Amino acid sequence: MRKIRAAVVGYGNIGKYVVEALQVAEDFELVGVVRRNPQVVEPELANISVVGNLKELESIDVAILCTPTRSVLQYAGDALAMGVNTVDSFDIHTKTVELHTALDKIAKENGRVAVMSAGWDPGSDSVVRALLEACAPKGITYTNFGPGMSMGHTVAVKAIPGVKAALSMTIPTGTGVHRRMVYIELEEGYDYAAVAAAIKADPYFASDETHVLQVESVDALKDMGHGVNLTRKGVSGKTQNQLFEFNMKINNPALTAQIMVSCARASMRQQPGCYTMIELPMIDLLPGERDSLIAHLV
Amino acid sequence: MRKIRAAVVGYGNIGKYVVEALQVAEDFELVGVVRRNPQVVEPELANISVVGNLKELESIDVAILCTPTRSVLQYAGDALAMGVNTVDSFDIHTKTVELHTALDKIAKENGRVAVMSAGWDPGSDSVVRALLEACAPKGITYTNFGPGMSMGHTVAVKAIPGVKAALSMTIPTGTGVHRRMVYIELEEGYDYAAVAAAIKADPYFASDETHVLQVESVDALKDMGHGVNLTRKGVSGKTQNQLFEFNMKINNPALTAQIMVSCARASMRQQPGCYTMIELPMIDLLPGERDSLIAHLV
Repeated sequence: MRKIRAAVVGYGNIGKYVVEALQVAEDFELVGVVRRNPQVVEPELANISVVGNLKELESIDVAILCTPTRSVLQYAGDALAMGVNTVDSFDIHTKTVELHTALDKIAKENGRVAVMSAGWDPGSDSVVRALLEACAPKGITYTNFGPGMSMGHTVAVKAIPGVKAALSMTIPTGTGVHRRMVYIELEEGYDYAAVAAAIKADPYFASDETHVLQVESVDALKDMGHGVNLTRKGVSGKTQNQLFEFNMKINNPALTAQIMVSCARASMRQQPGCYTMIELPMIDLLPGERDSLIAHLV
Repeated sequence: MRKIRAAVVGYGNIGKYVVEALQVAEDFELVGVVRRNPQVVEPELANISVVGNLKELESIDVAILCTPTRSVLQYAGDALAMGVNTVDSFDIHTKTVELHTALDKIAKENGRVAVMSAGWDPGSDSVVRALLEACAPKGITYTNFGPGMSMGHTVAVKAIPGVKAALSMTIPTGTGVHRRMVYIELEEGYDYAAVAAAIKADPYFASDETHVLQVESVDALKDMGHGVNLTRKGVSGKTQNQLFEFNMKINNPALTAQIMVSCARASMRQQPGCYTMIELPMIDLLPGERDSLIAHLV
């Protein structure tokens, strides 16, 4: 069987885990890694082609984009135009429809497939939310995140004057409400109370319960574990009080990376266009024969 | 918008809840109920066409089969041959591939769609199992059922001489192992110990921890609530200890019925053939516009 030839674009936190996930996926061949500085080659990349542009790699089926979320359209557009499927983990929930429309057009023009927002939220959580709406069309779903590090909030804290290092943890308090626990190291000459007040006034934190704690070492607190508790209480037909719950405790970038690789596989099985995970049949994410998957999973 | 014209075939426990689910689904029109004795009309069916054969109903898009699991092929085959999509909740896990192959052929010959095994297990649980394998390809999934009534085991107990009435409850003890709590009323002249021994020796119970209790009234114990606890601990890429859990506490026939109705909707959006739920994109189960579903769920 011909293997799926994959390229990893971007070699940050997610990219590293995508390389690992491709190395253990028997139906994939990791053709190379694309990064801004291809001269930099960490020991684990020693036997892997590292290049500065996707064009330098031959016969790529799918590019797994581990680039910043705001540049997804640009990187995906370039890859699709080169005749390469793409997978991204675009995570700005308010802009998914806009990206979907844009990528769908480019993908169809080039006869290729883009899978977007392929992570755990958006991503696998989206699949669970859709499934639970099909099970109980009336009702409320709450997605509770954490405990775990929020990348976006951490970046927001780091931008505040006087913050030398920061970590913003998301703590679920139920019904989709979250507490922010912010750990900071202070720059010399700054006042803790003033910096804490500035953090709490930031738009990222202003509407949440936020606690700011000064610590000796932020690095000593960092852990890439994360979690989700997703609940739905709803109505099936005319029957009330149907209760559903989905929980996970996971290494955050490792799960995102694995889902991207599974979606890269699914990209090979779709008609041209752009797909979110709720638009993909789950069977297409998995390796193996259809009949044996049905026998095993259904 | 033209509504989906649905027929309910069979009016037992599931059929009753399917009628309710169709009545509250705004994109469906309940055209009629097909049952063996159309003369029998319960009060809730007063304003609904009740007929003896699907052929008596006009322009049906989809037939929701609430007939015994062993007669699915026959009923689905007849409906597909009439140009009607079908949905069933076939639940013999060891025979899904066989039915899939048979229905796929008939569906394609008639240019129609069959959705099979559309319930909660097989069904929504199958979707969760497939999703979790995509999230962590290596590892073990345990599906723990209950506490709740097992229809199959209850029927098996009722077949044993000396049993006047019976209820077999499935109690999860973790790692996919189940205890059977069997409640029976004895026929006069039978010995409790002998009947209990016969139940425990039955193939349905021989390999499980089984307790048989004699009670005054089995009916007084009956409740259609059921539950699932589905867990997976596995490996994403090379990262161990990824933990996932799905729980539900639900009215059993109400959930099965709702899922069948959601799958009836999905049947209108597929190419001809037979589909299990892991072969359907979740978005197709839901009413509404694609973009608003993506904005809301992704």
